[in-house]
Amino acid sequence: MNQTGIWYGGDYYPEQWLKSPDILKQDIDYMKQAGINTVTMGMFAWSFLEPEEGRYNFGWLKERVDELYKNGIYTIMGTPSGARPKWLSDKYPEVLRVDDTGRRQLFSGRHNHCFTSPVYREKVRKINKELAGQFASHPGILMWHISNEYGGECHCALCQKAFRLWLKKKYDSIDELNRRWCTAFWSHIYQSFDQIESPSSIGETMVHGLNLDWKRFVTEQTTDFAKWEVDALREEGAAQPAAVNLMYDYKGLNYHKLSTAVDVVSWDSYPLWYKEKEIFTARDNGLQHDFMRSLKMKPFLLMESCPSATNWQGVSKLKKPGLLKLAGLQAVAHGSDSVLYFQIRQSRGCSEKFHGAVIDHYGGDDTRVFQEVKEVGRELDLLGEIAGTSVRSKAAVIYDVENRWALEDAQGPRNKGLFYHEVCTKIYSAIRKAGINVDVISMDENLEKYDLVAAPMLYLFQKGMEQKIRQYVGSGGCFLTTYWSGIVDDGDRCFLGGVPYGLKEVLGLRSQEVDALFDGEVNHMVPAGGKGKRYECRCLCDLVQLNGAETLMVYEDDFYQGYPAFTKNSWGKGTAYYVCADAEQEFYNDIFHKLTEEAGIKPLLNGTIPDELEITSRESAGVEYIFVQNFSRNEIRLEKPLLEDLLQGTILTGDITDSGGINGYGTVVIRRKLTAEIRN
Amino acid sequence: MNQTGIWYGGDYYPEQWLKSPDILKQDIDYMKQAGINTVTMGMFAWSFLEPEEGRYNFGWLKERVDELYKNGIYTIMGTPSGARPKWLSDKYPEVLRVDDTGRRQLFSGRHNHCFTSPVYREKVRKINKELAGQFASHPGILMWHISNEYGGECHCALCQKAFRLWLKKKYDSIDELNRRWCTAFWSHIYQSFDQIESPSSIGETMVHGLNLDWKRFVTEQTTDFAKWEVDALREEGAAQPAAVNLMYDYKGLNYHKLSTAVDVVSWDSYPLWYKEKEIFTARDNGLQHDFMRSLKMKPFLLMESCPSATNWQGVSKLKKPGLLKLAGLQAVAHGSDSVLYFQIRQSRGCSEKFHGAVIDHYGGDDTRVFQEVKEVGRELDLLGEIAGTSVRSKAAVIYDVENRWALEDAQGPRNKGLFYHEVCTKIYSAIRKAGINVDVISMDENLEKYDLVAAPMLYLFQKGMEQKIRQYVGSGGCFLTTYWSGIVDDGDRCFLGGVPYGLKEVLGLRSQEVDALFDGEVNHMVPAGGKGKRYECRCLCDLVQLNGAETLMVYEDDFYQGYPAFTKNSWGKGTAYYVCADAEQEFYNDIFHKLTEEAGIKPLLNGTIPDELEITSRESAGVEYIFVQNFSRNEIRLEKPLLEDLLQGTILTGDITDSGGINGYGTVVIRRKLTAEIRN
Amino acid sequence: MNQTGIWYGGDYYPEQWLKSPDILKQDIDYMKQAGINTVTMGMFAWSFLEPEEGRYNFGWLKERVDELYKNGIYTIMGTPSGARPKWLSDKYPEVLRVDDTGRRQLFSGRHNHCFTSPVYREKVRKINKELAGQFASHPGILMWHISNEYGGECHCALCQKAFRLWLKKKYDSIDELNRRWCTAFWSHIYQSFDQIESPSSIGETMVHGLNLDWKRFVTEQTTDFAKWEVDALREEGAAQPAAVNLMYDYKGLNYHKLSTAVDVVSWDSYPLWYKEKEIFTARDNGLQHDFMRSLKMKPFLLMESCPSATNWQGVSKLKKPGLLKLAGLQAVAHGSDSVLYFQIRQSRGCSEKFHGAVIDHYGGDDTRVFQEVKEVGRELDLLGEIAGTSVRSKAAVIYDVENRWALEDAQGPRNKGLFYHEVCTKIYSAIRKAGINVDVISMDENLEKYDLVAAPMLYLFQKGMEQKIRQYVGSGGCFLTTYWSGIVDDGDRCFLGGVPYGLKEVLGLRSQEVDALFDGEVNHMVPAGGKGKRYECRCLCDLVQLNGAETLMVYEDDFYQGYPAFTKNSWGKGTAYYVCADAEQEFYNDIFHKLTEEAGIKPLLNGTIPDELEITSRESAGVEYIFVQNFSRNEIRLEKPLLEDLLQGTILTGDITDSGGINGYGTVVIRRKLTAEIRN
Repeated sequence: MNQTGIWYGGDYYPEQWLKSPDILKQDIDYMKQAGINTVTMGMFAWSFLEPEEGRYNFGWLKERVDELYKNGIYTIMGTPSGARPKWLSDKYPEVLRVDDTGRRQLFSGRHNHCFTSPVYREKVRKINKELAGQFASHPGILMWHISNEYGGECHCALCQKAFRLWLKKKYDSIDELNRRWCTAFWSHIYQSFDQIESPSSIGETMVHGLNLDWKRFVTEQTTDFAKWEVDALREEGAAQPAAVNLMYDYKGLNYHKLSTAVDVVSWDSYPLWYKEKEIFTARDNGLQHDFMRSLKMKPFLLMESCPSATNWQGVSKLKKPGLLKLAGLQAVAHGSDSVLYFQIRQSRGCSEKFHGAVIDHYGGDDTRVFQEVKEVGRELDLLGEIAGTSVRSKAAVIYDVENRWALEDAQGPRNKGLFYHEVCTKIYSAIRKAGINVDVISMDENLEKYDLVAAPMLYLFQKGMEQKIRQYVGSGGCFLTTYWSGIVDDGDRCFLGGVPYGLKEVLGLRSQEVDALFDGEVNHMVPAGGKGKRYECRCLCDLVQLNGAETLMVYEDDFYQGYPAFTKNSWGKGTAYYVCADAEQEFYNDIFHKLTEEAGIKPLLNGTIPDELEITSRESAGVEYIFVQNFSRNEIRLEKPLLEDLLQGTILTGDITDSGGINGYGTVVIRRKLTAEIRN
Repeated sequence: MNQTGIWYGGDYYPEQWLKSPDILKQDIDYMKQAGINTVTMGMFAWSFLEPEEGRYNFGWLKERVDELYKNGIYTIMGTPSGARPKWLSDKYPEVLRVDDTGRRQLFSGRHNHCFTSPVYREKVRKINKELAGQFASHPGILMWHISNEYGGECHCALCQKAFRLWLKKKYDSIDELNRRWCTAFWSHIYQSFDQIESPSSIGETMVHGLNLDWKRFVTEQTTDFAKWEVDALREEGAAQPAAVNLMYDYKGLNYHKLSTAVDVVSWDSYPLWYKEKEIFTARDNGLQHDFMRSLKMKPFLLMESCPSATNWQGVSKLKKPGLLKLAGLQAVAHGSDSVLYFQIRQSRGCSEKFHGAVIDHYGGDDTRVFQEVKEVGRELDLLGEIAGTSVRSKAAVIYDVENRWALEDAQGPRNKGLFYHEVCTKIYSAIRKAGINVDVISMDENLEKYDLVAAPMLYLFQKGMEQKIRQYVGSGGCFLTTYWSGIVDDGDRCFLGGVPYGLKEVLGLRSQEVDALFDGEVNHMVPAGGKGKRYECRCLCDLVQLNGAETLMVYEDDFYQGYPAFTKNSWGKGTAYYVCADAEQEFYNDIFHKLTEEAGIKPLLNGTIPDELEITSRESAGVEYIFVQNFSRNEIRLEKPLLEDLLQGTILTGDITDSGGINGYGTVVIRRKLTAEIRN
Repeated sequence: MNQTGIWYGGDYYPEQWLKSPDILKQDIDYMKQAGINTVTMGMFAWSFLEPEEGRYNFGWLKERVDELYKNGIYTIMGTPSGARPKWLSDKYPEVLRVDDTGRRQLFSGRHNHCFTSPVYREKVRKINKELAGQFASHPGILMWHISNEYGGECHCALCQKAFRLWLKKKYDSIDELNRRWCTAFWSHIYQSFDQIESPSSIGETMVHGLNLDWKRFVTEQTTDFAKWEVDALREEGAAQPAAVNLMYDYKGLNYHKLSTAVDVVSWDSYPLWYKEKEIFTARDNGLQHDFMRSLKMKPFLLMESCPSATNWQGVSKLKKPGLLKLAGLQAVAHGSDSVLYFQIRQSRGCSEKFHGAVIDHYGGDDTRVFQEVKEVGRELDLLGEIAGTSVRSKAAVIYDVENRWALEDAQGPRNKGLFYHEVCTKIYSAIRKAGINVDVISMDENLEKYDLVAAPMLYLFQKGMEQKIRQYVGSGGCFLTTYWSGIVDDGDRCFLGGVPYGLKEVLGLRSQEVDALFDGEVNHMVPAGGKGKRYECRCLCDLVQLNGAETLMVYEDDFYQGYPAFTKNSWGKGTAYYVCADAEQEFYNDIFHKLTEEAGIKPLLNGTIPDELEITSRESAGVEYIFVQNFSRNEIRLEKPLLEDLLQGTILTGDITDSGGINGYGTVVIRRKLTAEIRN
């Protein structure tokens, strides 16, 4: 890439202002003022690039790219497949999605085309090739941005057919499919692949194997479509990397698969600040950053974020002064090489007209938001050397979407809520609170590189998962899992013979029964030995039969009072922990404080870390960058050891107050030598 | 009209009792007993008037009209288009509505025909002409009641086509439509009018200009249909005035347009008494009365109200003794020339069989309800001279439905609720509480006749609105507006260059950013100078930049503590106030107490007005009628000045208690000379 | 039947395990261990019995029946109509239901075939005949189980046609239908039966007569289908009794009609234990047991119940130790001759894979659940002689589904909830709390056999109901009814002339008006005479005019303070009580304590019955069995008289503690001679 330092800028839609050359000119002036070096264009411009079928018009876009480049601003070029022109839908209705009840949707919105339609694929291929033909060799093009926020599904006849072929390829024989999907239940035996229909609210919803395979098919069809888009660019010689932008905690697709279609992972981060304390929002957002980073285990891009208030949340809250910078730097701290906004200039009409922007309808540069945007630009400029550096984590949390699909589709043991996302977040937060980097990984990841792996509620085991965990623990890993793990195989079929499947020896126990608690109902965990902290637990309580494990805590209430609630088992060279119930955050904070120590993982800085502080790091050959971020609005004082450790580095940005603290919403970034001692 | 005094009676469905002549006879006896002088008939009688296509049967209805007239009871004759016969739907399915997803509805209910269908128009025209032929010259016919509670919309192919023609007529060129609708957003450029489809839940929902124009089209198509109905009557020589009955706070149609189709506005008032204190319900209902009156700035009719409990609300509460009279007189106090009920006699079956009626299933005249109905009859008889008198208001609140459409369709700044209706009600109530009449007007109304105009949350400005306000303030008007005003033009496209559009000088400020508060979150407004009352504010907080305005109050909390929260600006000969946040009722009570004084508007009576009292007036040449109504169940004592002022008039009805008060649920009406001093 | 004692076992699906002979063998071992003597098979096996159209395969099933029989286990043979094979739906789409909006459903789930389709009837007839041909004479077959949990409805053209024929048969002339349905309202007059369409969410919903007749038609069509199924079996010589399994408080069908199609009533009981105190759940469940028993006034079967946690409720709670036995014995106590579980062995996949089972996925017999199942088996063995004995009740509660249909479909007087189920439950519980057996009957039942009949909220009177009640009271019965009774006739048309219809003399009053209370709003009932207990009442308050009745209690609040709230009237030889408002449980407890005494009904045991105890009885010639069940988790001590009375019998099972009590979750069953004194 021909851009150095951190990319700063955002989505830009000059096509909305082509009749206002003064505005286009002003945009560039403002961008320069704000330190913006990167824009994304083209994403929703199909009607302007191909106003009629086969008639192309790239002049206006070329002019924009040129003009920006002349002013030192690079372009990420988007393919326009996210929103079709009206003429395309009208002439070829097959490109419109069909919903699960068989209704063909009307032209509207965006992100609603059939991924299977040969016509749509052909039209996309053509426009992408034209686009690449125009821009592949332009020095101002940094990257290709493929479509926008892929998602959704189509149930048209073409998709049904593709799904059947996909199933046939997967199972080969219909008998095998019947066996794996357990269709003997309710007499649902299929005689041939041709009989299969996608899940539907006016049809089948309860064959879990079908539901799961349908979601997998949707991911693969979407990924195939994304690859098809990239291939079209490559055919015309486009050599720049390609990216797709992903969404917060999105369950519609398996992002581990989709991200294989591109070179770079990027995502759109819109935290709902102030709904709770900023540190909780930051943890939640941090988990997503780390998830995105872990997809390719390399720097990602923050592709979209809001310079002010979003317009699509229930309540459009302003960011309080300083939060914009704090949030932007958090992305960099977790591995992003960019801070990009949606959007540079606010559109005048339609659904996003009140979404925050660098330049609003008023249009002046004397707004609070614009001043803060400028301030972020200045800051990022100081951190340019961090671009491209990596993040090293010795701990990982498995947060797996296929597991989630199965878990949430299952009926029982608690249809009112299982709280998978929440337990993963609790564990993630506990490790982060201990001052340690975390990877957020899928089941497919190699575990051997970690000293500590947590796999909460790992309901579904991909083939061989139990073997991988045995291997990991056997060779010395520290492993923690919980209630409702190892229950079903990759076809969502229950394991026989006792669960967690294949791990009864590793964990030294067997899960016998799971009690579900009503909303508001509480049980407690107390130390097995007597004295010590007591924690609340809710939702699910596993009743285990021990087979070698040591009981660390027991239940306090109900008929299973005194039964194990938290256990430990030494196995091979490693240790395996089992949390029986949905415990509160404080429990996880306390145990991960100990577990990380046991696993020999050193915190990034020594000393006690205050509650509302986040400490993260990036590194490159021999150098480490530590980010210390204060997510409260008040100054936080650092205790002596922490402060001293921090001050051993060189401050790249941020201030230590006279009283040895960090200002409210403040960020301090230091650079220090990466010694062997630090890496341990 | 050949009826004098106040019309008293209601909807009457003799077609349900044709086989029970004794009941029909008893009905007339009871009506006379109750002082009823007016009934509405024919509204749902199509199956009886035209039992088969082209075979008419008016005999039974004629007999009823004759019989009633002989007994001194007049008829409002309804056209039957609100509910089609089954044969019509079966033979001509095009008369059935198509919903937004394209599903043709089945025969059912009422109010569900296509307003475009040429067949339906023709059939309605024929039956209306037949009806007029029969009754146009009957001396017992007071008025024509056109259909019933028009509402709803149809998305059939005929309507789509009509919509496209309507758009073509409005915009002339598709480029202009694209520009006004901002279709560059998400590449939604239309190439021709033929491509346009109505908003749909399986299609387009987010092009705000389309949504807004669709609503306008629906209003125009409905209005055109209503005119078509009236024209059919006129062709056959029907000379009596025509009315349509409108509904409480109905958002489906622009009543300012619909009411142009007829001579008289009437409405159906069903307040949910006792959900809160009666005075609050009365304010809410009073606003609607004044809205209906302001549509034509002349007396309206209370076309429907319930003599007992309704059956379609969540909880069917009885009216406590005395409330029936109180509510009936409130309508008259606000400008109604009638008190009419739905219904005279309760139907035996189907959906409204438990709706309160003058005569219930029991059928006796010894019921509490019937006794109260009689009492109301006696009372209205005393007030006959008030019929036809007008209401004079020097203050107005703009409560505009097109503004509301746009406001509530926009995404942001608070999708969980903007509370437009609520803020208008707060301001209306505050002015009423000051003892002053209020008009409730649309943006299109002439402002010059008012001394005080409030325009809360006037998000959308019709073309020229800013000019009208400038003119108003410049020539000495007192004007108040609030946060989230002047944001979009009449195509729902954001104004550029700073808002409130065109009023930055008038208001002496510019709105910079709007913060939205979570449900339950509160900020406060405190006097800019220090000491004084403090008010809660919620939902939306505007952060303004002053440019000449004086700060009266400031925010107390959040990062915008100390920023202006309420401002005043002198401009030209007038004054303009700006309320920055969604303040509580008490704030509005306090400021409108002052503002009305400043604007030189005298209250209807001197002295402090107790909280649960409503004071209203009507007037005719030289004479004024003052209504003082007690909406609490307990006596309210009047302070001396108020009592003295009241007693200067002649009491037409109602009692002053020995302790100088008004009984619980009591109404006192006086007549007094309208001196120049009073009119000021 | 060739089975003696109480049937113990449950649903068994060997077709899911045909490839695992070891599992099939283990199943039988486990069943024998657990004392299981009965299984239900075949219910969802159609795909295995007829894998292709016309190709049958009964071998595997025959082998199972044989094998089980050899091991002393009998089979209830299910017909497979509850879940079609895929090939059947694919080849004959008419068998798939059409929903009320006209959408043909896709193949899926179960319980979703058209009951009218000639094709489906023919296919079901064939498979049933084949099944009967195979098993009619097998000594191991105890009974035929017809389909599974009949329910739902179809709106296809075939059903529409059948509905029209049904209406024509019922009303003969369309004029009569118009009159009964009151179609004069909103001009809905039908010209011919051909014009009628079923109720639809995109069509008619508010013609109450249509809605009610549609529900009746659905019941009759379903019943006819069930008879069709039974007939097919009988034709092939199947002589064993037939049963259908019914569901908890199911409103979709009139079970009094459906149960006429079979010999034995059975039902599926899945109480949600622990949502409230166990005794409340037990009362609620007890009402259903008694309802099922009262359908045929003879022993019923508990066809399904869960040995552990269900999987389809919001929260899958475990049964605490001992509850399984307690609940199983409660069924027997109320008249069941079986305790059957869904399911013997847990399925591996699809929607019910986490539903509790005798043998779970783990597969061992060392589970808590399996041990408790064994314990229940041992217990039932001790109670074998009770099988076949009857229940004698001198009190009855009318809980009528047609009444409920009409009541809940009506608009008003409280659309937010009328609480019919709740008031019936309160009265049922009050009588049970008095230690007295109760029948739960429909309006069609003969009342003469009871000393006390309660008919709460009997809104709809079937033809002659008022006459039946007059007869009952006149000849000495004790009768209680409440507000909102006797309002409409069997066509849901309001009675004229005063209500409760036909009972104004019997009750000595007339209902004048009904006030509805908001959620949370409370009124009170206080003794008419002054001192005494005060009760809360909510929801509905009837304002009655007395005409001879004695006022026992009056209202305390609102404008109807002092009006009667509870009255008594002596009429003929009997007494009639009227409860005016929705009173709290305590009120009913207190009055039924007195009323049962007045009616001369002796409690099953003398002495005060503790709150959490249930006492029930069964009897055969000369012998009575008393069940005393403790629904709390703690021991309950019995006062002396109660204990002494109990100890006069022979204990069949259960322990009296040293302190004269019954252990938590304990059951004591005694046998005693049925003396004339006891029978009184």
